[in-house]
Amino acid sequence: MSMPTNPSFDIAHLAHVEIYTDKFEESLDFFTRIYGLTLSGQDAQSAYLRAWDDYEYHSLKLTRHHTTGVGHIAYRAASPEALARRVAVIEASGYKVQGWVEGDLGHGRAFRFEDPFGHIFEIYWDTKRPDLNDATRPALKNNASKFHATGACPRRLDHVNLLSDDVAAFRQFMETCLGSRVTEMIALDNGRTGGCWFTINNKSYDLACTEEHGSGAGRLHHVTYATDQREDILRAADIFLENGVHIETGPHKHAIQGTFFLYVWEPAGNRVELANAGARLILAPDWEPVVWTETERKRGQAWGLKTIETFHTHGTPPTKKEP
Amino acid sequence: MSMPTNPSFDIAHLAHVEIYTDKFEESLDFFTRIYGLTLSGQDAQSAYLRAWDDYEYHSLKLTRHHTTGVGHIAYRAASPEALARRVAVIEASGYKVQGWVEGDLGHGRAFRFEDPFGHIFEIYWDTKRPDLNDATRPALKNNASKFHATGACPRRLDHVNLLSDDVAAFRQFMETCLGSRVTEMIALDNGRTGGCWFTINNKSYDLACTEEHGSGAGRLHHVTYATDQREDILRAADIFLENGVHIETGPHKHAIQGTFFLYVWEPAGNRVELANAGARLILAPDWEPVVWTETERKRGQAWGLKTIETFHTHGTPPTKKEP
Amino acid sequence: MSMPTNPSFDIAHLAHVEIYTDKFEESLDFFTRIYGLTLSGQDAQSAYLRAWDDYEYHSLKLTRHHTTGVGHIAYRAASPEALARRVAVIEASGYKVQGWVEGDLGHGRAFRFEDPFGHIFEIYWDTKRPDLNDATRPALKNNASKFHATGACPRRLDHVNLLSDDVAAFRQFMETCLGSRVTEMIALDNGRTGGCWFTINNKSYDLACTEEHGSGAGRLHHVTYATDQREDILRAADIFLENGVHIETGPHKHAIQGTFFLYVWEPAGNRVELANAGARLILAPDWEPVVWTETERKRGQAWGLKTIETFHTHGTPPTKKEP
Amino acid sequence: MSMPTNPSFDIAHLAHVEIYTDKFEESLDFFTRIYGLTLSGQDAQSAYLRAWDDYEYHSLKLTRHHTTGVGHIAYRAASPEALARRVAVIEASGYKVQGWVEGDLGHGRAFRFEDPFGHIFEIYWDTKRPDLNDATRPALKNNASKFHATGACPRRLDHVNLLSDDVAAFRQFMETCLGSRVTEMIALDNGRTGGCWFTINNKSYDLACTEEHGSGAGRLHHVTYATDQREDILRAADIFLENGVHIETGPHKHAIQGTFFLYVWEPAGNRVELANAGARLILAPDWEPVVWTETERKRGQAWGLKTIETFHTHGTPPTKKEP
Repeated sequence: MSMPTNPSFDIAHLAHVEIYTDKFEESLDFFTRIYGLTLSGQDAQSAYLRAWDDYEYHSLKLTRHHTTGVGHIAYRAASPEALARRVAVIEASGYKVQGWVEGDLGHGRAFRFEDPFGHIFEIYWDTKRPDLNDATRPALKNNASKFHATGACPRRLDHVNLLSDDVAAFRQFMETCLGSRVTEMIALDNGRTGGCWFTINNKSYDLACTEEHGSGAGRLHHVTYATDQREDILRAADIFLENGVHIETGPHKHAIQGTFFLYVWEPAGNRVELANAGARLILAPDWEPVVWTETERKRGQAWGLKTIETFHTHGTPPTKKEP
Repeated sequence: MSMPTNPSFDIAHLAHVEIYTDKFEESLDFFTRIYGLTLSGQDAQSAYLRAWDDYEYHSLKLTRHHTTGVGHIAYRAASPEALARRVAVIEASGYKVQGWVEGDLGHGRAFRFEDPFGHIFEIYWDTKRPDLNDATRPALKNNASKFHATGACPRRLDHVNLLSDDVAAFRQFMETCLGSRVTEMIALDNGRTGGCWFTINNKSYDLACTEEHGSGAGRLHHVTYATDQREDILRAADIFLENGVHIETGPHKHAIQGTFFLYVWEPAGNRVELANAGARLILAPDWEPVVWTETERKRGQAWGLKTIETFHTHGTPPTKKEP
Repeated sequence: MSMPTNPSFDIAHLAHVEIYTDKFEESLDFFTRIYGLTLSGQDAQSAYLRAWDDYEYHSLKLTRHHTTGVGHIAYRAASPEALARRVAVIEASGYKVQGWVEGDLGHGRAFRFEDPFGHIFEIYWDTKRPDLNDATRPALKNNASKFHATGACPRRLDHVNLLSDDVAAFRQFMETCLGSRVTEMIALDNGRTGGCWFTINNKSYDLACTEEHGSGAGRLHHVTYATDQREDILRAADIFLENGVHIETGPHKHAIQGTFFLYVWEPAGNRVELANAGARLILAPDWEPVVWTETERKRGQAWGLKTIETFHTHGTPPTKKEP
Repeated sequence: MSMPTNPSFDIAHLAHVEIYTDKFEESLDFFTRIYGLTLSGQDAQSAYLRAWDDYEYHSLKLTRHHTTGVGHIAYRAASPEALARRVAVIEASGYKVQGWVEGDLGHGRAFRFEDPFGHIFEIYWDTKRPDLNDATRPALKNNASKFHATGACPRRLDHVNLLSDDVAAFRQFMETCLGSRVTEMIALDNGRTGGCWFTINNKSYDLACTEEHGSGAGRLHHVTYATDQREDILRAADIFLENGVHIETGPHKHAIQGTFFLYVWEPAGNRVELANAGARLILAPDWEPVVWTETERKRGQAWGLKTIETFHTHGTPPTKKEP
């Protein structure tokens, strides 16, 4: 048995996601007051948000834009040397490279590149910790910030789900550029890959890509934060209900990855999830991807919930096809 | 900033712990019927047990012995090549080496070595999956075995806590031989290290070592399995209560590592924990060890529970000092 | 403001429900091993089951029959005198009276009567406590039996849901015969009552009746036990999944009554629910029924789940109309 | 067997508790921002607070005072006629009567009387509902107010615990004046009653009285609100920790009544509890009080926690004896 190529160990973790909103004030109010992230800082275009136990300055960059969707996806490297190794790999890969950018409020210089579907990725090493003050300093020094208990108050960024019209090609990109592993996937009857769940470390996944056709480039399906307990998600459902947030589906348990989930739409229309994986981790170094057939998928979610229609059609930015 | 030496990436995860019992039948009954592990197999000396989502044949080896305590601690390597690299490092380290053993029911050949306090470690690559049958095959193919719901029914092995009279020396051993990282530690006023929490991957810890004096070599403080939710631990407390199991302390939340915990003694006297870390992971590649002072420790656990006296005195095998 | 007529205070609580099964052995296995009730005793026709904290001999009587459905519904009176008062009221009411029966394994003589749709009710005072032995004696003397932790292991009987083609007439029956209060109800656009939720004490409901047409007499919609926590229901969903039990809908939260729910079908087809009301009680002596319009009902359950089609069509015994 | 005298059915439920504070602003900040009650209104001396699902204007009246402790304890009658019956009983009882008061912001005229230890009780019928506005109107019409998710955010008032130097005499008072039932009690080796837990309805208790000597009259041990889930209490523990609230003991499970609990001290020193009883109710009309011996009490709480020393000494107002 040969040594597994992945994970590469060069990339440490999914670090932040930038999402676009054409209703900036409403979105920011949702993410801070209802969803329960903390505002680390702001510049002219963007708000920088973090969950209470995210250790970096931000895990969500919310940016004013003429439409919705994902700006870029960032991973932090495992070391400066690992970053250099990865940059060399990506430059040699043939994928489209944007090159180095100077970073922003939350981190230093970053190397940007694109997947074949127009999603922008970046990797970086130099980071910034949030400035703590009397309102945000935690009682326990092993927490990144105070558990503020506002809104849903998830613990940390969990994953992002992108859309593309060729998931197999997207997989090739992820394995090549980041050294990610596929932990679970959907094999369609027509031979295509319906979806892939990737991880760069011991989380069961930090990025998923699912198939859609004809939408044009680079859409976002959703971004997800992790709660400590499933009860936090049940409680969040009541918070969303009381605040008039559109609950799309859930709470329920995914068959794929076994994650307990709840999906809502923030005011601008971006889908946002809360999820809890329990104590599940991918520890096996020789983990074989779990492959789900179309027949198995038709059984619905773990406890029988049928997947809601909008889950297959709604993404951001919206397409002309979506009502 | 230089690249962090650890984690080494050569070692994938804590794999199993062997514990000794001088009440084999009672201990086996406890671990299967009350604690909720599954019996994968047995030989003349030992029972091989796993939690329902442990992917290997066993995570706990329960062995007949004239006394209690820990037999050995096993980590699985990340690849055959990584195993070879680690063996070379250990052989060059000067620590006591036992060399290769043929393995047992649950895995292939393993390389054994010792810490300075007599605890036996092993690392290996070749492993065995549990044999599934109609009673143990999971409904969801991404689970290792069926969620059987018997007893406390934790999800997977979490960590082991050893005792030694020189934690700083033990730390040197762990960093050298396994490439473990220290995520949290206790710095005593006398300059000594009161305890160290180690991890080899993204778990916040998989092994802890705390200080004790005069006990002789190689004692065990406890072994721990992870539950999916804190509620599982509250429910387990009632199961232990109803079955006459000695609850030593908890449920409560540790200040160190923030883990929700419950400690009981299995029939032979080994301390066993159930723990839940919520969504906490160590994702930062440049995580600095959190250092707790003696003053901070005196505040008790996270919500104020004072540490119970036996927690400082009881280990296995028992010493002459313990009543 | 005048004194409310109801609750009557003559009736203490819903005591037990008899359900019919044409798959007795499979149903009994489901209710004991998977749903987690305890077998108190058996006679030729029936098994007498109780939840771990039900104080009476049985709360579920499972009876061999040529089909499925509900045998009878029993309430316990508040005292012998209260029983006598209620019997007089019922005899004077004009509703069909069956008169006194000798009781069975779980209680003494009982007075039987019928609603206009053929459901049989009984009220009684003399009861029997379960015989406790070493396997069922609780660790805490304020519990009725040991928390056995087998299967879903609900705490106590919660409520029963019947079907009738005239809910307003059923309401008249409940208010007259038992002195029940309506806590919530559905007012259809056509002026009819779509459903009524009744209570005889501080529980938010112990019996519900919902409308159906053309099924013939006396159908059962479901019987429900209460769990201590919502997490118990999430855990039970996995137990049902692993044991091949048909999960019809849930877990989710009802808009009406706010109960967290999960519905499954036991092997013979009777619908069985697990529910958790949190700390909700009806304490107001002048509680006004909450009236839900058809428009409000179309919004689905509390967090947006659409009511599954079979929820409107499946009852027991089955009708010819149901596929 | 004769009809049980109690509960009387004349009294519906514990309605509100008035507590005194000599740090009014700090106490009010604690109860609204951290404990999570809603301010219904204020007058010169008092703030009127309710939990989100309390149906009356207030369940806690927080009053400026030169010291701490309990002002009065209020129960709502089941009807105007029931109120009149109870007033007649109390007037005939020989207990000290204060007579009718005009009520306050939250209810109409009330009848006041005293226990032999100086605690003031009142009963009333005319009540007031809270004024709902856009910020407090619930999404679900069967809730009293919006689930606001601020602080610990308990659902409703649960119970109050008083201190007296003769619990048997206090029991006589409760049975006579309110018609309360004793559900559990402590029988001391010296023949005295160490504590009594009372209920007027199906709750397992709404008032407790425990023994203390030499403190003078009318002390308060604690007041308690109920959470929907045990997880709410674990979450609240972190909220208290982050806000510097003194956690006295818990979370743990009481042996008596089986309630999951957490005790903190509000800024002025009054002890406040959060509790969850799961699905436990007292349904049996012939419930026999559960009697705990001194030996049984020495085993500690349900899962073994030893009762903390201050629990036996700290009450409000403070005595000279307490440090």
